[in-house]
Amino acid sequence: MPVIDPATVPVKTGSIYPEPYASMMQGRSSLRLGDAGGLSQFGANLVSLEPGALSSLRHWHQYEDEFVMVTEGECTLVQDAGETVMRAGDCAAFPAGNPDGHHFINRSDRVARFLVIGSRAPREVATYSDVDFRVEIEGGRARFTYKDGTDWVGPR
Amino acid sequence: MPVIDPATVPVKTGSIYPEPYASMMQGRSSLRLGDAGGLSQFGANLVSLEPGALSSLRHWHQYEDEFVMVTEGECTLVQDAGETVMRAGDCAAFPAGNPDGHHFINRSDRVARFLVIGSRAPREVATYSDVDFRVEIEGGRARFTYKDGTDWVGPR
Repeated sequence: MPVIDPATVPVKTGSIYPEPYASMMQGRSSLRLGDAGGLSQFGANLVSLEPGALSSLRHWHQYEDEFVMVTEGECTLVQDAGETVMRAGDCAAFPAGNPDGHHFINRSDRVARFLVIGSRAPREVATYSDVDFRVEIEGGRARFTYKDGTDWVGPR
Repeated sequence: MPVIDPATVPVKTGSIYPEPYASMMQGRSSLRLGDAGGLSQFGANLVSLEPGALSSLRHWHQYEDEFVMVTEGECTLVQDAGETVMRAGDCAAFPAGNPDGHHFINRSDRVARFLVIGSRAPREVATYSDVDFRVEIEGGRARFTYKDGTDWVGPR
């Protein structure tokens, strides 16, 4: 059956980021529901944020569209213009190529969850708004760079 | 801001189906949230089903992955093997090319809603499980056929 039982989906924690950024993702976990259901064309992940947790570093995608629906609790969306509190049922869209970086922070005192959909481009570049960091992903491999495209060797 | 205010999104009703199938879609409406937020790579639609309404004719997609999360009320998923009642938070995935047709019926006495994500293939073929009907979509144009590929001219 195509109905996905979340209890059977592995809880993913951790981050592909190098330190010190990986440690900043503590309190975040996700269920890869789309993958669990046999989908390959886009990701459909249910992300859980403990109080204080971040969804990611603030970023924008060059080639991939992203869509979010909050499903539980309160998520605070942060962008260039400031913060917006989003609650269950609230949605947001982040078109590929729009350089207004975003992430979510759980500023509440209980868990918050959102469903995030992301398309899967053959090549993707994520640029991080608040630090000199960029990730290029191609063929399942990630390359970390500064924003000038040179190899990342540590925060600067 | 990328937050989508559903109150500003046009309510879409009607169907691309020819009669008598179009009339079977009464009580269904949707908000194209992804389009409203400027996304193009996949559709993200919030579908509302009045009591008794169907989400579509029972169908499967040849090239496009589909993902559903129920957001309100009860939706009954119908497939070859039978029926499954889904409630808020329940998810289902329908990988491209799996010929086990699906649709949702609202068998309850109040409105039901689900978020549906569908990728956008350059060419798509939807095949309808319970009637001799198929739709080919390419370049924004729909061609209706019987399952043998000949032009559809009416139910048979």
